[in-house]
Parts: sequence; C-alpha cells; structure tokens
Amino acid sequence: MINRLIEGIKKTEAPIVVGLDPTMKLLPPSLYAETVRDFGETPDAVADAFYKYNKGIVDAVADLVPAVKPQIAMYESYGIPGLIAFKKTVDYCHKKGLVVIGDIKRGDIGSTSEAYALGHIGSSVIGGTEYRGFDEDFVTVNPYLGSDGVMPFIKVCEKEKRGIFVLVKTSNPSSGEFQDRICDGRPLYELVGEKVAEWGDALMGESYSYVGAVVGATYPEMGKALRKIMPKTLILVPGYGAQGGRGKDLVHFFNDDGLGAIINSSRGIIAAYQQEKYSSYGEAGYADAARAAVLDMKADIAEALG
Amino acid sequence: MINRLIEGIKKTEAPIVVGLDPTMKLLPPSLYAETVRDFGETPDAVADAFYKYNKGIVDAVADLVPAVKPQIAMYESYGIPGLIAFKKTVDYCHKKGLVVIGDIKRGDIGSTSEAYALGHIGSSVIGGTEYRGFDEDFVTVNPYLGSDGVMPFIKVCEKEKRGIFVLVKTSNPSSGEFQDRICDGRPLYELVGEKVAEWGDALMGESYSYVGAVVGATYPEMGKALRKIMPKTLILVPGYGAQGGRGKDLVHFFNDDGLGAIINSSRGIIAAYQQEKYSSYGEAGYADAARAAVLDMKADIAEALG
Repeated sequence: MINRLIEGIKKTEAPIVVGLDPTMKLLPPSLYAETVRDFGETPDAVADAFYKYNKGIVDAVADLVPAVKPQIAMYESYGIPGLIAFKKTVDYCHKKGLVVIGDIKRGDIGSTSEAYALGHIGSSVIGGTEYRGFDEDFVTVNPYLGSDGVMPFIKVCEKEKRGIFVLVKTSNPSSGEFQDRICDGRPLYELVGEKVAEWGDALMGESYSYVGAVVGATYPEMGKALRKIMPKTLILVPGYGAQGGRGKDLVHFFNDDGLGAIINSSRGIIAAYQQEKYSSYGEAGYADAARAAVLDMKADIAEALG
Repeated sequence: MINRLIEGIKKTEAPIVVGLDPTMKLLPPSLYAETVRDFGETPDAVADAFYKYNKGIVDAVADLVPAVKPQIAMYESYGIPGLIAFKKTVDYCHKKGLVVIGDIKRGDIGSTSEAYALGHIGSSVIGGTEYRGFDEDFVTVNPYLGSDGVMPFIKVCEKEKRGIFVLVKTSNPSSGEFQDRICDGRPLYELVGEKVAEWGDALMGESYSYVGAVVGATYPEMGKALRKIMPKTLILVPGYGAQGGRGKDLVHFFNDDGLGAIINSSRGIIAAYQQEKYSSYGEAGYADAARAAVLDMKADIAEALG
C-alpha cells in the first residue's frame, strides 16, 4: 500500500491528501436540508449529510489526488450513525481508487492495540470467513505507550501490506508542551522520530517504509530535522492552510527525490466554498470549489518545491 | 460524577472497577454458540455475545463495585456491530446504577478533541434536541498532544459534570520508552502528572478532581511519587492481576484517607472461570466466578491497605 501511495503521488504530481472532516458548520445548508427531509433533524440526517458531502468532494477530486484522510472523531461525535457514515465513506473512496488514511490516533497496549489494528487495517476471522471492520489502508497511531502500543499495528501492517503514520510532532500550538521537552539532551519528538525510523526499517516498501510519521506543517524547522532522522519515512503533514502552514514551509519535509511527504488539507478544501476566494461557486458548487482549491494547493506546493 | 464515583467507592468499600474487555478467547463457548444460532458465525454474533457476556457479569457484580470500564478497542475490532454492543453495554451499566469509564484513550487537537468529547461524554444539539453518542461518565485521554488536546475534554466535563482520566504512566512493559525519559531533570511522566494536577485544580469535585490520571499497578514506586504530585487526583490503576500487579503494590496509590485510587481488573474477573482457582464454576457459571473474583480482589486490597 505504501508503494501504491508513492506511485499515486508520482502519477498525480500531487503530494496531497484531502481531509474528509465534515462538521455541521462546514456542511452546505441545502445538502443538509435534503437529508433532513429524509431523516428529520437527527444524528441519522447529520451522518447521511456527511456521507453525501464527502461523496460530492470525492467525485470532484478523485482524479487529482492519491489519497483522502477521514478524521474519525468528526463521525464518532454522532455515535453509531456517524461511524456508519465513516465506514461508507471509506468504502466509497476505495471504489474511486483512492488510498484511505484513517485519522484515528489510536494507541493502547498489547492485545488492545492489536484489537484496534485488526478493526481498522486488518480483519477478524469468524467461522472461517474474514470480516473487516473499518477497512482503511493506513491509520494514524499515538506513540505515548511505546513499542508495546505500536508493534501490534506494525504486525498487522506486515500481514496486510498496509501502513501507519505515527504521531511525532503535531501541528497544534501546545504540541511542544511534552513533545519539545529536552530529554537526555534532545527534544522528545526527535527520540520518537528515531524510534519511527527504527520501526520503519524493519518494514520497508520499495523506497519508503510502511511506517510513516505525522509532523505538522506549522513547525518547518523541526520538519527539517526530522526529515534527516527519518530518511525513508513518508511524512504526513497536517496544518497546511486553515492552521497557518504555507507552501514555502513545506520544502524541508521533502527529500531530494521530490518525494517523502504528503500534505493534508481539510477545511481549506472541503469548505473552500465558504472562502471569499471561491465564493463564486456558491454552496451548491462546493465540490467544484474543492476541486479548484486542490488545484491551487497543488500549484502552491509545486512552486515552493521549485 | 466524580463525587458519585467517590461515594460509590465508600459505599461498596471496593475501590474496584471491572474491565469489560471481552474477546473471543474469553467468551464462554456455550454463550457464543447461542448467539451463533441467532446470527450465524458473523460479527453480529460476536457482538451480541459480547453484550450478553457483559450483561451476565454486570448482573453478578453490580452491587459489589462502583464502576465498570469497557475497553472500546475490543468492540471497535468488530466494526459497527461491535460498537453497537459497546453502546448497549454502556446503557445497560447505567441502568444498573454503575459509573461507566469508557477506556477510549482518545486525544487529538482543538475541535477534533472536542468532537470526541461530545461524542463520548457530551452531546450534540440537532434541531433543538440533545443527542448523546456513546454516553460514558468518564473517558481515558492521551496527553501526547498537550493542553490543546486535553482542554476540549475538560470543557465538556465542566458542562456535563463528567470526568476524564489522563494517561500518565501506563502499565505495559515498554511504557518507559518515552514516559520515563528524563526531561529537564525529571521523568516525563512526572511532568505529565504535574499538568494533570494543574488541569484538575481548575475543576474540583468535593474532595477529588474531575480530572483523574492513569498510573499502572506494575510501577508502584512511580505511583508513590505521582500520588504526591497529584494529591487531589483520583488514580485509575490498571495492571492488577493478569498483568502482574498485586495488592501490596497498590498501597502507595492511595491517600491517607484510604481513597484516591480505583483499581481495574479485566480478564482476572470477567474470565475468572478460566482460572484453576475458579474452575469449579464451569463456563456456565462465569458470572458467579466473576463475583467470587471481585470478592477475593476486594479482600486482597483491604488486606494490603490494612
């Protein structure tokens, strides 16, 4: 799956992942009104609207990008109906040929991490039949619990040829509270980065590892240091656009081969229609606005990479 | 809810939480066979068996303990049907008067953490009606992303009078890989513990804070240090029993008032029937075996606390 993702980045010339993170505020009102007609004002209506909203965006951008990243929290917020919409979104994205990165930030110990891994990127055999829970291609993983928490994911990756992205340095303002602490002379995120490189060495694809890392666009200097520590690691970079990261901040996340990073944008794409710049599309044109925003983002990154 | 939990501990004289972490291996075979008759060998059968298994245990122990802690990973492993069983378990435990700690170990940034918090311990207002997603009373939270990741949970706690337990020092063998790193002269877990105390001061119940901590029974010396750093923090202690923690290891997790800690046991209780010691109950007597194991655990802790 890492090889397919890298191939997708090369083919589309877009190291871009579209974050499918719907919220009530981002939903085009007329689309929501339509689902309310079917379900009343209920979590089922919200969930159905999320799915239809995603579908519109995916149809509009599937030829432009290699991957999408649904953020499960947005769906989980609405309980079971929300998670059904998450699963339908994953399935639809697969049907459209996209690599699906489940942004789930799970992490626990031993058999509990294994349960998460099986539910998201693996399968359970019941009565001789393989059942898949959520069926993403990659998931994000929290490293706070150490190797015990991460290795069960890696074992499932090995079997399924799927991958993970381990949180190393997150994009939020207070990420430094613990991640930047100087431990034994070096910031914690570098120590986590070293572990990611070590875990990754044991499970290589053709040019990059099945074990990737998350490093926020909002910390370009740290990205530069981490790029060197993890040369064979694909870096998933959140924080572009709405969170403040810009094209020029991204340069050092990439290797000299022009690969090695994939940049996420969520609100900046899926709710582009709410921005002044794309307002001419109107809410009914939200999908076309998303397409235009992807093309602009692609140009911004290409210019920065020069 | 923290006051209710502390009251429950006093009333039952059992600082014990029963971990409802079902797996295929722990399920009594005849109970599973019954659900297979209804659903075939499918995830629906597994999920229904998990719910019935939990129900049996809850019925047997509800008068003995103040709280239960379903581990969501075990359910999430089976996708949507699994999560439906999780939700049914939460609802059933509420009906039986138990405090429910959702062991979800979530953590993300800003609005994403808020989405998790609303889905698990809060609600969403849709068309003027409040809908609750999973409806636990407490959840566990991962601190790796810093205050941005934790504060949205705390805000929801404040509104709902519910609580969280933040991972500080986990019970697994490799928890030290990052958590024990010496940062600015002190182990990282102590720095996290200080933050927990600080977050907790701002949201106090009568004697303990709505912001609790997770510290593994397998690290008693660290528990002792953390007890002092977080005097008003209720400590949720995993790792007793199956993971190797014993009654005498628990003493320093408690304050002089005999309160301040609540000890989790999962396999050791729910699958007691598989242990030599309780084998006379047989698999059909799994619930009575669980009851006996709770009583033994209560005696073990009481003896240790003197």
